Amino acid sequence: MTIETVSTNRAFGGVQGVYRHHSTATGTNMTFSVYVPPHDEGAKLPVVWYLSGLTCTHANVTEKGEYRRACAEHGLIFVAPDTSPRGDGVPDDPEGAYDFGLGAGFYVNALAEPWAEHYRMRGYIESELPQLLADNFPADMSAQGIMGHSMGGHGALTISLRNPGRYKATSAFAPIVSPINCPWGQKALGGYLGVDRSLWAEYDACALIESGARLPDLLVDQGAADNFLDEQLKTHLLEEVCTRAAQKATIRMQPGYDHSYYFISTFMAEHLRWQAERLRG
Amino acid sequence: MTIETVSTNRAFGGVQGVYRHHSTATGTNMTFSVYVPPHDEGAKLPVVWYLSGLTCTHANVTEKGEYRRACAEHGLIFVAPDTSPRGDGVPDDPEGAYDFGLGAGFYVNALAEPWAEHYRMRGYIESELPQLLADNFPADMSAQGIMGHSMGGHGALTISLRNPGRYKATSAFAPIVSPINCPWGQKALGGYLGVDRSLWAEYDACALIESGARLPDLLVDQGAADNFLDEQLKTHLLEEVCTRAAQKATIRMQPGYDHSYYFISTFMAEHLRWQAERLRG
Repeated sequence: MTIETVSTNRAFGGVQGVYRHHSTATGTNMTFSVYVPPHDEGAKLPVVWYLSGLTCTHANVTEKGEYRRACAEHGLIFVAPDTSPRGDGVPDDPEGAYDFGLGAGFYVNALAEPWAEHYRMRGYIESELPQLLADNFPADMSAQGIMGHSMGGHGALTISLRNPGRYKATSAFAPIVSPINCPWGQKALGGYLGVDRSLWAEYDACALIESGARLPDLLVDQGAADNFLDEQLKTHLLEEVCTRAAQKATIRMQPGYDHSYYFISTFMAEHLRWQAERLRG
Repeated sequence: MTIETVSTNRAFGGVQGVYRHHSTATGTNMTFSVYVPPHDEGAKLPVVWYLSGLTCTHANVTEKGEYRRACAEHGLIFVAPDTSPRGDGVPDDPEGAYDFGLGAGFYVNALAEPWAEHYRMRGYIESELPQLLADNFPADMSAQGIMGHSMGGHGALTISLRNPGRYKATSAFAPIVSPINCPWGQKALGGYLGVDRSLWAEYDACALIESGARLPDLLVDQGAADNFLDEQLKTHLLEEVCTRAAQKATIRMQPGYDHSYYFISTFMAEHLRWQAERLRG
């Protein structure tokens, strides 16, 4: 697999790059960003995956996430994939809604038509992109962490829960903790997977924990002034299942913070320090 | 004068706001952003002005500048104005070029038609907006610093040089140091001021220093891989005049860095620490 360099910029002593490649998982071209911090020649560095939320591409966190200073300090590679396939022939929500189709892949492998051909973000993030990263960057694939925001928080939690031992650190900003139980998730899982709800559980962090999946630890920050908290994010469901299941977790409500990158950037450095302790520990 | 709140977001314990008002200087509505860090009730805080470069609005640095952590740490208010008047009746470059007209006010009070009516960014930044800030925010106007990028670096240097004692700290990222001597500046000053070059000198940092204006100190960072360095920015002209005039200055070439916000954000925290030392010292 070859990758094309879209851009590189020096930042905080390292290189912020944007890259494009043809994905066999999605059958489309895909764009992603990678920050490689300053490092010794030949060194392999821990990797943090960042999965973005609805409407985002790689660019949102790359421009607004304020992660480079902390990644440079801790020696972390930071990878930001896109949130869906895009391009000619990729179907979108029939009404162009922001919460399904383009920009809203929900990190599933779709089963229903017409989505099943291209909407394979689970396979892309779990299998194809890690191999691409290992082949093209100084990445220590034995030291991976994963984090995400909103829909990407859902992605980070569910991907980590389904792959025990692969990610040494898992954290999230304002995650959708139980798509089975909120309108965004019901639309997405119903659309991509179909009406058989037994197929939805592997894409629901609360359901995965309920049925026995465990993480070594978990860090979640949630803005208390987030407009999506009550109807879509429902952080309390994650708190409850973690208590019931004795899943170690730090879940913090942050007074006054909303759903934006102003919230994410505020807590990004702390999440990366928390990740680094587990990746380098 | 009243201001309208466009948005506020909690960030790094403070508030990132965007505001709009009718400007008497430009005769248009103007939008600007202000970050107010966490502070004690009733406290007045030092202010750092950030002037943006060609094509920018307040939004570029607000989203990509990575200044909030340092402003929260040092207790600095950070103000980001727009770079030109905008709206109905505001003339633009006849060919829509990026380097003149909308997004390219060059911090001058225009004298030539049709620019003179609205293109009054000097008066806006030097007089009107400071009064608005003093009236509406917890700003200690006896402790102001100024910085900027590219065209805004030119703005920061020239405004500070023309107003001795007002700004206790002056710094710049990749400034246009001598618009009289580069294509961007010649087009802008010729267009806004007319062909009489004797009127240009007050908008040229090197000419101002040459003719006796002084700052207590000056910090400039310039990317050595900046595509605009040789033709437009010409940092060496500032180095030379500072040496000739015994103007205290730290002017640093940063290897590998370009003209982007990846460069600015890398050095932002250091500039703000340098500013804070002078504003709180």
